[in-house]
Amino acid sequence: MPLVVQKFGGTSLVTAERIHRAARRAIRAKLEGNHVVLVVSAMGETTDELLSLALQVCYDPPKRELDMLLTTGEQVSIALMAMAIDAAGHEAISLTAAQLGLVTDSTHTRARIQRISRDRIDRELAGGKIVIVAGFQGIDAGGEITTMGRGASDTTATALSAVLGAEVAEIYTDVDGVYTADPRLVPQATKIDEISYDVMLEMAATGASVMHSRAVEFAKKFKVPVHVRSSLTDASGTMVVTEPSGMESVAVRGVTLKEDLAVVSLIGIPNTPGVAAGIFSELSRCHVLVDDIVQNIHTGGKLANMGFSINATDTAEARAVCERLSAQLGIESVGIDESVSKVSAVGVGLRTHATTAATMFDALARAEINIDNISTSEIVISCIVRRTDGPKALRCLHSALGLDRIVETEGSA
Amino acid sequence: MPLVVQKFGGTSLVTAERIHRAARRAIRAKLEGNHVVLVVSAMGETTDELLSLALQVCYDPPKRELDMLLTTGEQVSIALMAMAIDAAGHEAISLTAAQLGLVTDSTHTRARIQRISRDRIDRELAGGKIVIVAGFQGIDAGGEITTMGRGASDTTATALSAVLGAEVAEIYTDVDGVYTADPRLVPQATKIDEISYDVMLEMAATGASVMHSRAVEFAKKFKVPVHVRSSLTDASGTMVVTEPSGMESVAVRGVTLKEDLAVVSLIGIPNTPGVAAGIFSELSRCHVLVDDIVQNIHTGGKLANMGFSINATDTAEARAVCERLSAQLGIESVGIDESVSKVSAVGVGLRTHATTAATMFDALARAEINIDNISTSEIVISCIVRRTDGPKALRCLHSALGLDRIVETEGSA
Repeated sequence: MPLVVQKFGGTSLVTAERIHRAARRAIRAKLEGNHVVLVVSAMGETTDELLSLALQVCYDPPKRELDMLLTTGEQVSIALMAMAIDAAGHEAISLTAAQLGLVTDSTHTRARIQRISRDRIDRELAGGKIVIVAGFQGIDAGGEITTMGRGASDTTATALSAVLGAEVAEIYTDVDGVYTADPRLVPQATKIDEISYDVMLEMAATGASVMHSRAVEFAKKFKVPVHVRSSLTDASGTMVVTEPSGMESVAVRGVTLKEDLAVVSLIGIPNTPGVAAGIFSELSRCHVLVDDIVQNIHTGGKLANMGFSINATDTAEARAVCERLSAQLGIESVGIDESVSKVSAVGVGLRTHATTAATMFDALARAEINIDNISTSEIVISCIVRRTDGPKALRCLHSALGLDRIVETEGSA
Repeated sequence: MPLVVQKFGGTSLVTAERIHRAARRAIRAKLEGNHVVLVVSAMGETTDELLSLALQVCYDPPKRELDMLLTTGEQVSIALMAMAIDAAGHEAISLTAAQLGLVTDSTHTRARIQRISRDRIDRELAGGKIVIVAGFQGIDAGGEITTMGRGASDTTATALSAVLGAEVAEIYTDVDGVYTADPRLVPQATKIDEISYDVMLEMAATGASVMHSRAVEFAKKFKVPVHVRSSLTDASGTMVVTEPSGMESVAVRGVTLKEDLAVVSLIGIPNTPGVAAGIFSELSRCHVLVDDIVQNIHTGGKLANMGFSINATDTAEARAVCERLSAQLGIESVGIDESVSKVSAVGVGLRTHATTAATMFDALARAEINIDNISTSEIVISCIVRRTDGPKALRCLHSALGLDRIVETEGSA
């Protein structure tokens, strides 16, 4: 029997009525002849409310206890979803990560999946049940409760899809698919019908919040087709697949804005081998993710300067690491700029479309937006700008890169 | 090193400030040279809020999923308590029932403890940590999450105390001990300094809500001294022990009121062997607890009538069982009266104090309170009265049985 994984995010579970709506969708998929596995997030703003509760009690909560606290949000959701399916006359069973056997490493708040057991899910599916799995959470080899980072319920869904050999992982959300830009910021944005894993990955990594980038990595690695769609309508959304069927001649598929960045500047680094490696390995050990290394200017003498961007939420930890290493390594000063954003154009073969970069820089210049830094890869071109300029830069690039015009063409066809 | 178990109820955890207060108490016990194990309930009204959420989604939630849902309340509390202790500079670790190894049978919402593993707690205590255990919850042999009934965090505390050989189980609550009657209903009630397990057990069973009766059973069975006391003051509360040191000449130690009762009447039962046994075994199978069998009148002919009291919350289930059996066994009719309460006098050797019963009936008669039924045991005399008469009956008995006068005597001494 084919198997479908459906993942419902917090906005799709915010009221009893929405939970029933999600339950009906799962039941319909079952009645259409599929095994159905649901992955659910915490209801609405639950995770933020729990975090705020933690911060009322403790300025810097131990991460193990934070995971103990936050995983209750998904546990509430799985129980309520099972009740909703039961109320509709169908059989369901909820499973925590511990009950399912979703094992991660022991890095609390940022754990990575190590293995997922099929046994319990297979048994429950064979018994005719819809299986409801708590997203976001895992359990380490010692039975400690872990979480995989904000938004990681998507990862639970695609990883489960891979292990179970699902036909499709349906990611239900409050928007009806992936757009050429965030429609809240760019009204001219249009829905993308098909997108490749690689482009989706870069869009997620550079700020498209519709899907978690690690979830896309799993889907890509195990070739799980992903369908990003609205929980409120039956309209089809965006298919994320290996090779989109057409439209690949369109170089730029979307533009994204990542607002929660900070740039760390290290001034006067001794120009001796291994210093940079020491800094980055210490940041990595402290679980600070370095987004882009934005400058690496050797002054020719004994000292160098270096800058890199990080998630703004890691600022305190990055500052602590850098100040400790400054003292050890003789770095002259550490500066952190917390008021930057990154605007990116994402598409296939951008390097071979040489005009894309030029078009971007020209458009930003004409809009009088300063570019602090540029980074490029095969499928993404990013510019660091002032945070206040972010939304304007996004709209400006969306228009300059011809994404607005797709609407016009389709409308006049 | 001596070991102390401290249990904090929902009212002692209702705000961040209260959680910190409880944390300070645990730290103080540790600094005084004890190993400390905390057992915590869900914060404030959390369990009721979760129940209401369930009822929004499902009229009759599956009990397994109800347990999945409700256990999140205690999981939130253990995490926050660990954070509060950490914030105060001491080491703590929270443990769910699954992590601890508190194994129950598989009767969801009313599970009973089968065994408790010491291994994990001993290891954490040896590592210098304060151990925080989620009350109310267990795990069955198959890894399913169970709960042990409302108020069962007390049971977790006394059962753990027994297994760990605790010096004392301290039950922290919002009142400063066990009273001769509920002080909210009887202003003349006085605090009891020492009470025997047996009397405490009957007081809990007949309505004193300060401690869960199964918790007292555990304490009695394993001779764990229990100290019921206020989380808001340092005053000592009520010690529950095998043999109170003095005062045992006082026959009646307290009066209680149990308001949430219903009386089921079975009219016209075929007078053949095994019918009553069949009814009670079916009620038991459906987990309806029969409080007292209040009437059993054989009419001398082929038919008999029978009445018994149950918890009002079981009314729907009891009605379903009785109506099903009526059809099968040829019982003429089933009536349920949901507007009764039970008022009880509890003390040692009440049967040998023949005057106690007479005093009670006389006092209720003079207050024009009808007694629907009477039941007596070695240490309790109970009367079923109209629910509207309950509080008045309680005050009347408290006074008639000389409990008011203890205050006057002490005041004039």
